Amino acid sequence: MKVFGIDPGSERTGYGCIETDGSRHRLVVCGAVTTSPRSSFPDKLLVIHQALRRLLAEQRPDCVSVENVFYAKNVRSALKLGHARGVALLAAVEGGYPLFEYTPAEIKRTVVGYGRAEKAQVGEMVRLLLGLDAAPTPHDASDALAAAICHVHSSEGLAQAAIADAARGARKAPRSWREYRP
Amino acid sequence: MKVFGIDPGSERTGYGCIETDGSRHRLVVCGAVTTSPRSSFPDKLLVIHQALRRLLAEQRPDCVSVENVFYAKNVRSALKLGHARGVALLAAVEGGYPLFEYTPAEIKRTVVGYGRAEKAQVGEMVRLLLGLDAAPTPHDASDALAAAICHVHSSEGLAQAAIADAARGARKAPRSWREYRP
Repeated sequence: MKVFGIDPGSERTGYGCIETDGSRHRLVVCGAVTTSPRSSFPDKLLVIHQALRRLLAEQRPDCVSVENVFYAKNVRSALKLGHARGVALLAAVEGGYPLFEYTPAEIKRTVVGYGRAEKAQVGEMVRLLLGLDAAPTPHDASDALAAAICHVHSSEGLAQAAIADAARGARKAPRSWREYRP
Repeated sequence: MKVFGIDPGSERTGYGCIETDGSRHRLVVCGAVTTSPRSSFPDKLLVIHQALRRLLAEQRPDCVSVENVFYAKNVRSALKLGHARGVALLAAVEGGYPLFEYTPAEIKRTVVGYGRAEKAQVGEMVRLLLGLDAAPTPHDASDALAAAICHVHSSEGLAQAAIADAARGARKAPRSWREYRP
């Protein structure tokens, strides 16, 4: 199963795609869509949307996992983040990809085991879980991969992986979702 | 000159298109894109984006005017509004339409003459300025038309109208923007 994670932001939108059998994950691609500080805000939204549309079309993931947000420093930053998240979610639904959303605390709890983990801890666990030499940079890429990994470890993700596994004729019985809880 | 106004919202996005020579305005079309309360939030964004893309392609306006927002009741409503505004702005820039943004106070000051005007006053002035029998409903449609009218009365809008006028070979000298200030 291929899961595409997104960590939206108007200046930098992280993305990361993993291939997984439910227990072992492999990094396919990750990075960040960076917008020019000289661009107008609507042009930034266009860049984010077009980049995600293209990346999703290239990867054709089984689903998309996006960090959900209910809090922000203030109304102004919430508005900015909302715009970027809006065009990111749009790119996923336009492509017809099943979309899953997880709060930052859910992602940290699943990946690190602690809902208030630091960015560096998330990066380090992403590095370990994907068997990489170094944590992916910028941290937006790590955060996007963490969102993807969080979905795999969720009950919907494990059910999806089991179905994908069965479709490939794998003999190994899918493990229950409980085993994967961190 | 054709100006397309948008008043974004996740439940209801108002839109209104006017045809203008800079001083007299004519209503072309107005209404609201209403999303189903049963739809998921990403699906609502898809409906808003697709509807605006279609309406803009039908009208092919010279420019798009959108209500700008810097304040909201709270972070949660700012996030929601941000998502809807994000896909609305995207629809405009994707179509290559010049995009202008005005704050609610600017729109009210231009259309009603008072930056803290009530919704009903905005509707009434939109009715008068467009020579309609009744104020367009829902109020989101009136607000979108007010955004369009605000742009016409702005300096950029008047310059645009003058250029469009000159292109049509009109003999009448374009009036200065000052004359249009309410």
